[in-house]
Amino acid sequence: MRVQSQDGKIYYGLLQLSLNVEVLDAPPWLDGQPTDLILEPEKYKILAPCAPSKIVAVGKNYADHAAEMGTPVPAEPLIFFKPPTAVIASEMEIKYPQQSQRVDYEGELALVIGDRTSDCTPAQAQTKIWGYTIANDVTARDLQQKDSQWTRAKGFDTFCPLGPWIVRELNPGARLQTFVNDEFQPVQSATIDEMVFSPDVLVSYISQVMTLMPGDIVLTGTPMGVGPVKIGDRIRVEIEGIGRLENTVVPR
Amino acid sequence: MRVQSQDGKIYYGLLQLSLNVEVLDAPPWLDGQPTDLILEPEKYKILAPCAPSKIVAVGKNYADHAAEMGTPVPAEPLIFFKPPTAVIASEMEIKYPQQSQRVDYEGELALVIGDRTSDCTPAQAQTKIWGYTIANDVTARDLQQKDSQWTRAKGFDTFCPLGPWIVRELNPGARLQTFVNDEFQPVQSATIDEMVFSPDVLVSYISQVMTLMPGDIVLTGTPMGVGPVKIGDRIRVEIEGIGRLENTVVPR
Repeated sequence: MRVQSQDGKIYYGLLQLSLNVEVLDAPPWLDGQPTDLILEPEKYKILAPCAPSKIVAVGKNYADHAAEMGTPVPAEPLIFFKPPTAVIASEMEIKYPQQSQRVDYEGELALVIGDRTSDCTPAQAQTKIWGYTIANDVTARDLQQKDSQWTRAKGFDTFCPLGPWIVRELNPGARLQTFVNDEFQPVQSATIDEMVFSPDVLVSYISQVMTLMPGDIVLTGTPMGVGPVKIGDRIRVEIEGIGRLENTVVPR
Repeated sequence: MRVQSQDGKIYYGLLQLSLNVEVLDAPPWLDGQPTDLILEPEKYKILAPCAPSKIVAVGKNYADHAAEMGTPVPAEPLIFFKPPTAVIASEMEIKYPQQSQRVDYEGELALVIGDRTSDCTPAQAQTKIWGYTIANDVTARDLQQKDSQWTRAKGFDTFCPLGPWIVRELNPGARLQTFVNDEFQPVQSATIDEMVFSPDVLVSYISQVMTLMPGDIVLTGTPMGVGPVKIGDRIRVEIEGIGRLENTVVPR
């Protein structure tokens, strides 16, 4: 995970069962080694778990979501970017932009790239995925429909909640669920293996276009059930085996 | 400018009339100051003049180019991203990807952002533009037409030649010209003031969506005359008052 200590310094670290963070001297995917510094729970704030140079996202990668958008499943992965400036950590606020009247949550599995990745087969690509975390691909749906490119709709500051931390392994049948406020029923619920293009295929496809760098993020698409948020809402995305990503919506 | 010395180190510096580079201790937009190190011409290689965290590009920002693409001029700037991994310096090679049968040059003016830029008016935005350089927004035209999003078509490694250096001021009537090989006639020729949305308006618009960071790049769109490149072609984009950006096309 990535944390900020009380004196403002930013560290990569390992979360211990005690909730202490064992500080590393570099990101773990760059072979970061433990230092003597241990931060107790009240001594750190959780940051987004990496600082990606690129966030490559994938559209319509669950058949039931493509259907709810009234579009077919693409024959190849449909890729787009979110900018690094959109990233926020769990418990940071999603800012509702004045330009939009319809902002949606989109719960997603995020892949963390551990290595320089170029022109890989799916089998090679699998070895480049260092771990898994949770994302909310927040989208101004009205602007997405208005603009031909999704850059603005997907690119506002705070539109990429990410975290809270990274796990190394994930059960292919792990369930992704999104909850709005205290409602008991999830608004999104699917298992990761329902994806049209699996993580290894996505990373392979992207790597044949552009080099992925250590710490880069691939967002794997959202399942059925996308819907609007309003100011004051608290959005929670959970993935079994990872944890929960929670953010509140505030005015910009 | 940004250079690499013979021992592999990367520096920001100022080009002197002697063609020596006076090395700075930081990027000039971060108030980099001269050091004692001077690199003579045979002792450095020119790199792209900055290492942007984001490249925000603008589509159809010259009316005659929008017309040649068979589309109207957008009512608002049409923005998209190119990834940092696409950036190459002048004299580096553009790699023609196997996935495309039609790759085009697009000569463009590039703006270099000098300051953290968020929610600016056009007048404020003008003060955030640290300088100007030249770009080639290389585009796989067939993939642009095939994919709904332009991410792949615009995002291949080497698809953003940038440089050779940055100038602080630019005449609004400066002419942009693109040449293919040794042809005397330019394939593109327009003045910067023919843009639909001017640099200050573009930066203001983008800043209301996302925070621009020091060293980030805004590509301002290409004029009429886009056309295909083939393996072995040498593409030269010139802007009066800046210089020339030259790149050869090779197989990937």
